[in-house]
Amino acid sequence: MDLFDVIKRRYSVRAYRPDPVEEEKLQEILEAGRLAPTAANRQPFRIIVVRTAGRTEALARIYGRDWFTDAPLVLCLCGVEEEGWVRGKDDKSYIDVDAAIVMDHLVLAATALGLGTCWIAAFDPDAAREVLSLPDGVAPLLFTPLGYPADQPRPKQRKDLDDLVKWNRW
Amino acid sequence: MDLFDVIKRRYSVRAYRPDPVEEEKLQEILEAGRLAPTAANRQPFRIIVVRTAGRTEALARIYGRDWFTDAPLVLCLCGVEEEGWVRGKDDKSYIDVDAAIVMDHLVLAATALGLGTCWIAAFDPDAAREVLSLPDGVAPLLFTPLGYPADQPRPKQRKDLDDLVKWNRW
Repeated sequence: MDLFDVIKRRYSVRAYRPDPVEEEKLQEILEAGRLAPTAANRQPFRIIVVRTAGRTEALARIYGRDWFTDAPLVLCLCGVEEEGWVRGKDDKSYIDVDAAIVMDHLVLAATALGLGTCWIAAFDPDAAREVLSLPDGVAPLLFTPLGYPADQPRPKQRKDLDDLVKWNRW
Repeated sequence: MDLFDVIKRRYSVRAYRPDPVEEEKLQEILEAGRLAPTAANRQPFRIIVVRTAGRTEALARIYGRDWFTDAPLVLCLCGVEEEGWVRGKDDKSYIDVDAAIVMDHLVLAATALGLGTCWIAAFDPDAAREVLSLPDGVAPLLFTPLGYPADQPRPKQRKDLDDLVKWNRW
């Protein structure tokens, strides 16, 4: 699917059909994430692919909406802190940026293949660490369900470009 | 261009032709950024579009490679801190994630239109604040040049999927 169509069509899917995600599509989506650029090419992330079947109760501790576990799969983007790039001048870590780029690739790839996703940041990080057995130094940064949408796209509410773009300086 | 082709073709362009970026293409790229999702739809970002002509010296203080200012345009993604979404449970800000999603849309859109970009995190944040006249509470998070490539793509060096993907738990 054309990139600009993918960007227009993506929306936060909050109802999922139980149909499984085809293995071949899952591989294409993961490959799109693998090719994402990261700061200094450190690739300081891991993607945890969780099959929701039989794990609904544990996953609901991470994010308690029914549709989260109605999807057949949940993806979690984790940052491996010791692998991340940090800017020397002000000690700023770019691991959140790296994880977001990877997740954006996964989400756009899923959309292109007719699948639905929903960026989730409002999860319980302590529950995520426990349920997914994350070791120290590994941070859960982003989640999305992955499955076929059972709802309809809504029009996007966005600020105007005039309010988001500045020319040459602030 | 097909999303998966865009993802495969994008590379860090480190040499630019002086040719201008057509206004219509620039608008398409900015629109792709505008449509990006952000946490709680806060849209806590601004895109500064800098025309490099006549500003080479000032811009070189931000990032000192010739190719950075050889491109006709430089884009800066800024985060507006008071507009960003913060998770209540652990005070984690998602403003870096939001900025990265927007930049990823800009970069992919540019690639689809035959233009080149290069994600830059290793810039001087103090120089960026000064040169771009950023007020307090506005953080420079990411830069890229934007222009027609004068170099060739290189093969991507990435870890194997087996090293990046985990199943069900860590």
